[in-house]
Amino acid sequence: MSASPDSLPAVCLVSGGMDSAVVLAEARALGFCAHALSFDYGQRHRQELLAAERVASALGAVDHRTVRVDLGVLGGSALTADIDVPKGRERKDIGNGVPSTYVPARNTIFLSIALGWAEVLGATDVFLGVNAVDYSGYPDCRPEFLSAFENLAQLATAAGAEEHKALRIHAPLMKLSKQGIVERGLELDVDFGLTHTCYDPVQRGPKTLACGQCDACHLRLEGFREAGIQDPVPYR
Amino acid sequence: MSASPDSLPAVCLVSGGMDSAVVLAEARALGFCAHALSFDYGQRHRQELLAAERVASALGAVDHRTVRVDLGVLGGSALTADIDVPKGRERKDIGNGVPSTYVPARNTIFLSIALGWAEVLGATDVFLGVNAVDYSGYPDCRPEFLSAFENLAQLATAAGAEEHKALRIHAPLMKLSKQGIVERGLELDVDFGLTHTCYDPVQRGPKTLACGQCDACHLRLEGFREAGIQDPVPYR
Repeated sequence: MSASPDSLPAVCLVSGGMDSAVVLAEARALGFCAHALSFDYGQRHRQELLAAERVASALGAVDHRTVRVDLGVLGGSALTADIDVPKGRERKDIGNGVPSTYVPARNTIFLSIALGWAEVLGATDVFLGVNAVDYSGYPDCRPEFLSAFENLAQLATAAGAEEHKALRIHAPLMKLSKQGIVERGLELDVDFGLTHTCYDPVQRGPKTLACGQCDACHLRLEGFREAGIQDPVPYR
Repeated sequence: MSASPDSLPAVCLVSGGMDSAVVLAEARALGFCAHALSFDYGQRHRQELLAAERVASALGAVDHRTVRVDLGVLGGSALTADIDVPKGRERKDIGNGVPSTYVPARNTIFLSIALGWAEVLGATDVFLGVNAVDYSGYPDCRPEFLSAFENLAQLATAAGAEEHKALRIHAPLMKLSKQGIVERGLELDVDFGLTHTCYDPVQRGPKTLACGQCDACHLRLEGFREAGIQDPVPYR
């Protein structure tokens, strides 16, 4: 852990999933004053947004804003358009090729908006929960993508252009397996019961049940299994 | 003019202002099949969005989508928050420093969403109407910013990462003065009466009157004056 940034502001992308919860906890553990940012982008799994609120509040974000970006208007993804979410894929097939749940340019769009908020807040640090396992065929989850974004940010903003403040993108999970993320989350006292991961949940009364079959559920369950921990969220 | 791209699809950012109208006409003149993209980002000058519809339709875009991005949630700009739009500034002061009408990271956000739509459409060309005069203190209107974005796009998308399709950002107005933009628009038969520029318009019955005092009106009026043409839109 590096020296405390003494409550410098940081923008933390919080999706409501387990990864971004651990990232928010990392930012807090490093001493950042965390401003949580979520996106309502027409995702079918809107339980995420409720989970994001729970996570931001439980992990001590000073502020939480949800920006609506209506990506469904553009189509092209199983997460926003009427395309079936892939189910029951073999573990070996997850991570090969770009899946239909890929939302075109999603991380570019989310980081751009985070950049805008960082500029408003005078923040130079942005945290997000991408990692190598979750790359899973998504091009915008790679370290070289994040470096290119930092380079762009330097040219894009008044802070970068005039005050030569560099944006730092923190992706503390980049090299962790799902097992490693579960273990790190437990060290940081993250309550994974607050998080939501499933791409295709069903509602049973007040309970949201994860499908256990989509790629996201597969990766999550594998992480808990390998960590030797019971996943606290309910499944069908 | 280069060889016709034979109706290749292109995404054209259309704000409803005069610059992006000329850019859309350029894309069409080059033979591109233009998909017009506008943003409802909580701007106070919502007349822009109506103008964007008129412009897209009049200039032969095959499609026009408006993506809502709720940037007002993040504050920080006179165009989306409750901060006064500067009025009656001297011409010499326009273009010095970052004005309060700057929307943090706006062009980064807009280009990111254009990138997403381009990927859905299988397009590798994006047109936008930034130019040196309109830079006017906005860091994200410079050629080096656009180059950095092209570099990012190569890493950000499935098309770039897997098929090595490079994104080309066309900014045909980059080096034109406002006078040059007016003249080029007239050559391309752009009806500037359809466009809307003012940051702070007033409604008088069915008519929208431009203020004539904000930076955007100043630059527009100067362009028409220098071109020796009467601006067809009404002013207060």
